[in-house]
Amino acid sequence: MLLHHCTWLEVEDRLKRSTGIIVPIGSTEQHGPNGLIGTDALCAEVVAQGVGETLDALVAPTIAVGMAQHHLGFPGSVTLRPSTLIAVVRDTVQSLARHGFDRIFFVNGHGGNIATVTAAFSEIYAERSLDSSGRNAPAVRCKLKNWFDGPAIGKLSKELYGDAEGSHATPSEVSLTQYAFPHSIKKARMSPDIAPSGLIYDSEDYRRRFADGRIGSNPMLSTPEAGKRIYDTAVAEVAETYRQFLGAA
Amino acid sequence: MLLHHCTWLEVEDRLKRSTGIIVPIGSTEQHGPNGLIGTDALCAEVVAQGVGETLDALVAPTIAVGMAQHHLGFPGSVTLRPSTLIAVVRDTVQSLARHGFDRIFFVNGHGGNIATVTAAFSEIYAERSLDSSGRNAPAVRCKLKNWFDGPAIGKLSKELYGDAEGSHATPSEVSLTQYAFPHSIKKARMSPDIAPSGLIYDSEDYRRRFADGRIGSNPMLSTPEAGKRIYDTAVAEVAETYRQFLGAA
Amino acid sequence: MLLHHCTWLEVEDRLKRSTGIIVPIGSTEQHGPNGLIGTDALCAEVVAQGVGETLDALVAPTIAVGMAQHHLGFPGSVTLRPSTLIAVVRDTVQSLARHGFDRIFFVNGHGGNIATVTAAFSEIYAERSLDSSGRNAPAVRCKLKNWFDGPAIGKLSKELYGDAEGSHATPSEVSLTQYAFPHSIKKARMSPDIAPSGLIYDSEDYRRRFADGRIGSNPMLSTPEAGKRIYDTAVAEVAETYRQFLGAA
Amino acid sequence: MLLHHCTWLEVEDRLKRSTGIIVPIGSTEQHGPNGLIGTDALCAEVVAQGVGETLDALVAPTIAVGMAQHHLGFPGSVTLRPSTLIAVVRDTVQSLARHGFDRIFFVNGHGGNIATVTAAFSEIYAERSLDSSGRNAPAVRCKLKNWFDGPAIGKLSKELYGDAEGSHATPSEVSLTQYAFPHSIKKARMSPDIAPSGLIYDSEDYRRRFADGRIGSNPMLSTPEAGKRIYDTAVAEVAETYRQFLGAA
Amino acid sequence: MLLHHCTWLEVEDRLKRSTGIIVPIGSTEQHGPNGLIGTDALCAEVVAQGVGETLDALVAPTIAVGMAQHHLGFPGSVTLRPSTLIAVVRDTVQSLARHGFDRIFFVNGHGGNIATVTAAFSEIYAERSLDSSGRNAPAVRCKLKNWFDGPAIGKLSKELYGDAEGSHATPSEVSLTQYAFPHSIKKARMSPDIAPSGLIYDSEDYRRRFADGRIGSNPMLSTPEAGKRIYDTAVAEVAETYRQFLGAA
Amino acid sequence: MLLHHCTWLEVEDRLKRSTGIIVPIGSTEQHGPNGLIGTDALCAEVVAQGVGETLDALVAPTIAVGMAQHHLGFPGSVTLRPSTLIAVVRDTVQSLARHGFDRIFFVNGHGGNIATVTAAFSEIYAERSLDSSGRNAPAVRCKLKNWFDGPAIGKLSKELYGDAEGSHATPSEVSLTQYAFPHSIKKARMSPDIAPSGLIYDSEDYRRRFADGRIGSNPMLSTPEAGKRIYDTAVAEVAETYRQFLGAA
Repeated sequence: MLLHHCTWLEVEDRLKRSTGIIVPIGSTEQHGPNGLIGTDALCAEVVAQGVGETLDALVAPTIAVGMAQHHLGFPGSVTLRPSTLIAVVRDTVQSLARHGFDRIFFVNGHGGNIATVTAAFSEIYAERSLDSSGRNAPAVRCKLKNWFDGPAIGKLSKELYGDAEGSHATPSEVSLTQYAFPHSIKKARMSPDIAPSGLIYDSEDYRRRFADGRIGSNPMLSTPEAGKRIYDTAVAEVAETYRQFLGAA
Repeated sequence: MLLHHCTWLEVEDRLKRSTGIIVPIGSTEQHGPNGLIGTDALCAEVVAQGVGETLDALVAPTIAVGMAQHHLGFPGSVTLRPSTLIAVVRDTVQSLARHGFDRIFFVNGHGGNIATVTAAFSEIYAERSLDSSGRNAPAVRCKLKNWFDGPAIGKLSKELYGDAEGSHATPSEVSLTQYAFPHSIKKARMSPDIAPSGLIYDSEDYRRRFADGRIGSNPMLSTPEAGKRIYDTAVAEVAETYRQFLGAA
Repeated sequence: MLLHHCTWLEVEDRLKRSTGIIVPIGSTEQHGPNGLIGTDALCAEVVAQGVGETLDALVAPTIAVGMAQHHLGFPGSVTLRPSTLIAVVRDTVQSLARHGFDRIFFVNGHGGNIATVTAAFSEIYAERSLDSSGRNAPAVRCKLKNWFDGPAIGKLSKELYGDAEGSHATPSEVSLTQYAFPHSIKKARMSPDIAPSGLIYDSEDYRRRFADGRIGSNPMLSTPEAGKRIYDTAVAEVAETYRQFLGAA
Repeated sequence: MLLHHCTWLEVEDRLKRSTGIIVPIGSTEQHGPNGLIGTDALCAEVVAQGVGETLDALVAPTIAVGMAQHHLGFPGSVTLRPSTLIAVVRDTVQSLARHGFDRIFFVNGHGGNIATVTAAFSEIYAERSLDSSGRNAPAVRCKLKNWFDGPAIGKLSKELYGDAEGSHATPSEVSLTQYAFPHSIKKARMSPDIAPSGLIYDSEDYRRRFADGRIGSNPMLSTPEAGKRIYDTAVAEVAETYRQFLGAA
Repeated sequence: MLLHHCTWLEVEDRLKRSTGIIVPIGSTEQHGPNGLIGTDALCAEVVAQGVGETLDALVAPTIAVGMAQHHLGFPGSVTLRPSTLIAVVRDTVQSLARHGFDRIFFVNGHGGNIATVTAAFSEIYAERSLDSSGRNAPAVRCKLKNWFDGPAIGKLSKELYGDAEGSHATPSEVSLTQYAFPHSIKKARMSPDIAPSGLIYDSEDYRRRFADGRIGSNPMLSTPEAGKRIYDTAVAEVAETYRQFLGAA
Repeated sequence: MLLHHCTWLEVEDRLKRSTGIIVPIGSTEQHGPNGLIGTDALCAEVVAQGVGETLDALVAPTIAVGMAQHHLGFPGSVTLRPSTLIAVVRDTVQSLARHGFDRIFFVNGHGGNIATVTAAFSEIYAERSLDSSGRNAPAVRCKLKNWFDGPAIGKLSKELYGDAEGSHATPSEVSLTQYAFPHSIKKARMSPDIAPSGLIYDSEDYRRRFADGRIGSNPMLSTPEAGKRIYDTAVAEVAETYRQFLGAA
């Protein structure tokens, strides 16, 4: 169930049954010649909503812009500074905690968010950990789950693409968006087939190393059919992780 | 055209024709007994995308969470602090400016965002205005346009609902979401028909004054048919405002 | 009564009778060829102190520098960034709240402050609205009242100056300072009589559009005699607004 | 000359002759049973304006609220957090620097401001010192001068009050306000004649140690006549310091 | 060579030969019943200084306090909020960049720092990536290397301790401090031999799950002799990583 | 006793006897041709640890980087912005307060830290002073003690060096590091014998005025023997100050 398609009375009712909520978080950044700029946000959103349907769980609106400073050399990429994204995650979690949500599960579509969102969780916990006034704010637990990161999805990517999977603008994520948004499939030629790999610093350096935006991948192999398999596998795996998160002591 | 459904090469191409971009901004907050929590974000998004189609203009992902501290007494409402939202708008504009966008047009769905987003524009301009180093960063212009605020849409709301329009959880915005999301039409009884009016301070005070969340409105009058007329009128009016913004000296 | 001309014992005594306080807020920025740089702060201060005398109300020191980034192209203009002004308003309100003041009434002399001060109020309320620790900090209510904005003062400005009133460096505000500070009346010729109008972005753009600083006004029409009428009208109108604010449920 | 009583054209003209400006800074805080809450701001302002007259120098509006957290146990005291005051000083200096002012001279009336304003200067300088981009922002020099701190004024205070001068709510500063504001002279009995002395931590601790707000002083000895001598001495001494600051290589 | 044991003339000289520098970063937090509170800072420091000796490389003073909010339930633990640590890393890197250092290599001793320090690097890069003024600040590259994280050290830990290594207060890190600080070897009994494992949220939750502070480890197995082997292995492995970092295109 | 060489159980035990702790704070900045870049941190650390031994008091890890923006014109100098250092001091104090430490004693080795650290104390106290929620966080007291600043050490410096002591890169501090780190004694010729004196603004201005980094000093007079006398005197004097701080009502 989408939070934004509920009324507040419906949320009040749901809170009696479960105090967990799913928050998709992605990025708006170049994804190579045939990947959508919204790939990371779109993938996180469709997987999160798939989990929501599978488990009848509540899904908040997607945080569509993440930490993508290294992509700013390519038109259309948008970033939040890490300090800004920390504030966004903190305010989101504090708002939800106010209503009694205490298991906040972020489904993430972008590797570049991991460090900052993890730091944001620590910023939130630190408020409580540093407080010596004996206030009794309720504890909250946050978890970040990358949809592309798990045994089943890893196995599938390897089976489908092997070394052509790479680490940015991967055929897996491009396939997933092709499955979810069949009217937005893009055609493009790239050379070499598999993009170079390397380390990431600032956006000028990135553009110099990775001329068309890809890292280590060959997204020309993407198909909507593969996207369907990826979707099913990711939803099942992320749903299981969420179930365990809710059930943990 | 949706920015997130473009590749970076398509954005590069579009920038040669136009340096304007539309950014929908809304809120995720209670909208009374039959209004969706996402009303303000959903309305801003559908109107902005309508404008995008009308003018073949680029539309960025929606900033779905805005400044809604006063609604936190109702489950499901989420807010950014004004200081956080200022940082989000600043980073968004700076990212877009980096690529050469210099007319950033925010289509807004939430009255509570107006002050903060306007302050954010000043924060952005102030960086340039306070700089005495002779740096030559390009100037950028930002504009906030409320879709619900203009002669044509005002006339239509008055014709449709008169005094029952109110100022929060209005039948106009609820109708618009009913038109756009017909599977999420909610039924609810409310009493009195027209909610009380008054001033807004913090969330406890709000909940005490406005028991079911509405202010001055009767959203039981909402219909998808009215939503269609509202959509058409808002898109036309906002499109015209954007056209003028792009063309201004 | 001026807060700064009281002892703390006198304030303690006054708090038993009223928990309201008036805070004048203005700006230090160019006001065209014959307007004082302090116009907005001086007007807010004299009106606020007039209200203080009328109602035997407490008046705090004036916040003399506001949000004026757009005027920085003209020598002598000073601005606070919006983020700084938000912190100033927050600290001021929290200090006063600590003593038991719970109705903080800002008399404003500068249109450019409205968005930022309104955002500051939300920042203050958000602390309370986001807190889920059950702390029992007392609620506080803040209100911003522009002295130049009300039915009576609007009618008078129209009667006195019609279309020559404009929106910056208006003959009304210049007249008010001429009445209050008769030794600081400046003579200047300007051309055209009525300055151009237009939108405001950063300070370079502003200076290019509005060469002598005025917007839409003809302050050569200013007189101390008109200033007297403006003063009397503004004080009465603002006093009535404050009285209602204190009395509201 | 008061900056706020100039037009921008007058400031433009003055900048051709001198790039220095005086900024009074004080505090709004309890000053014992017969001292005005505005004592520190009022003293800084009258001395600064006296210097302005003596040297035909430009004087900006007073920063009336400073760092006074330790006084918050007494009604009417207002503080800025150090982090807020640093931002205020930074924005003020950057605004003035934008116009070409490069000698910013703060006349201070409050011991509690010294550390924070000094830190603010370092924050401003650090922007330049940390910048490795080769930008050519002009250098600016800031100086803080306490009006109550110098050989001549120290000698006079000692002559007038000896050990009864103390360190807060001193007879010297109270005398100075009695001279400057003869209609606001307050009568009060205090016991003991000379208040206790000690260290300063937070506001609760302060109120417990210093029950009526004074530290080490006997302000019952204040007279407007002494205030006249203090005024003359302080103005002469501060003016000389400013002259040297402007002339320094 | 220790930066803090150089003169500035020696640093100037060294910069002609290498623009790299090593910054040890650790934490000050409980390390179970027999681990030193400084374990993470001490280990990072001794390994970094060992690398400095091996390669004749410059080593900056250790950042001894890191992100350790989760340990605050145990006396003596000290944390920086993530937002504070980001500012510390940013100022450190900007200072070094000012002198021409452009390869900043952080040798890290604490898993809890990884996310925040990585986010700090992005915050630094983002300043450059978001800048559209054409400024020509030199690019800088930062790298975080955990001394305990690499094929050789991983193999050694496994050989030495197998499943008793755990993830906090490990016998490897305790052994390393026992080797480096033989006068500070602590004796303590713990039960069970191997501490429980689990996830980390705030400090209350941590203390409830991990009663004596350890996670998954048996540090009673620590010996200074093992510490010697760990030291040699870590220094060699980290030195090799630094050499590659300096040499990379 | 060093905090970082304790276990948490030992700290828990010590807290039963004393709630005081010593935090050394210095700077990492040029100290002229023969002074170590770490002089201020090293001196603060050795004196603080001497006090710790004398009184069996707990000593935290050294804050090795302070506020040194003015030294950035000389290679190897590192600074924290004042706003960053305030956050570091605040987080450190809040962490210690969480465990029950309520007397935090900073032994300082750098004049440039005084203003910022003092402002940081006020920032910490202000949180409590501005809080009107009736929370009962325990009060904490902070004190800054410069090891080089006291009657006994002043007398000794004068006796040893008279006018050649100066104010930066003094023979006293260089002697102290020569005593403490005999393997890091540097030889250098300087001219003139006694460096010029003057005021401090930004780092470019500093380098222009003070070509080799010294201010008013002749550190060629430094000897390890003098360092021994300085060490003994400083430790005794600082220890006595700490004793009084702990014992004060």
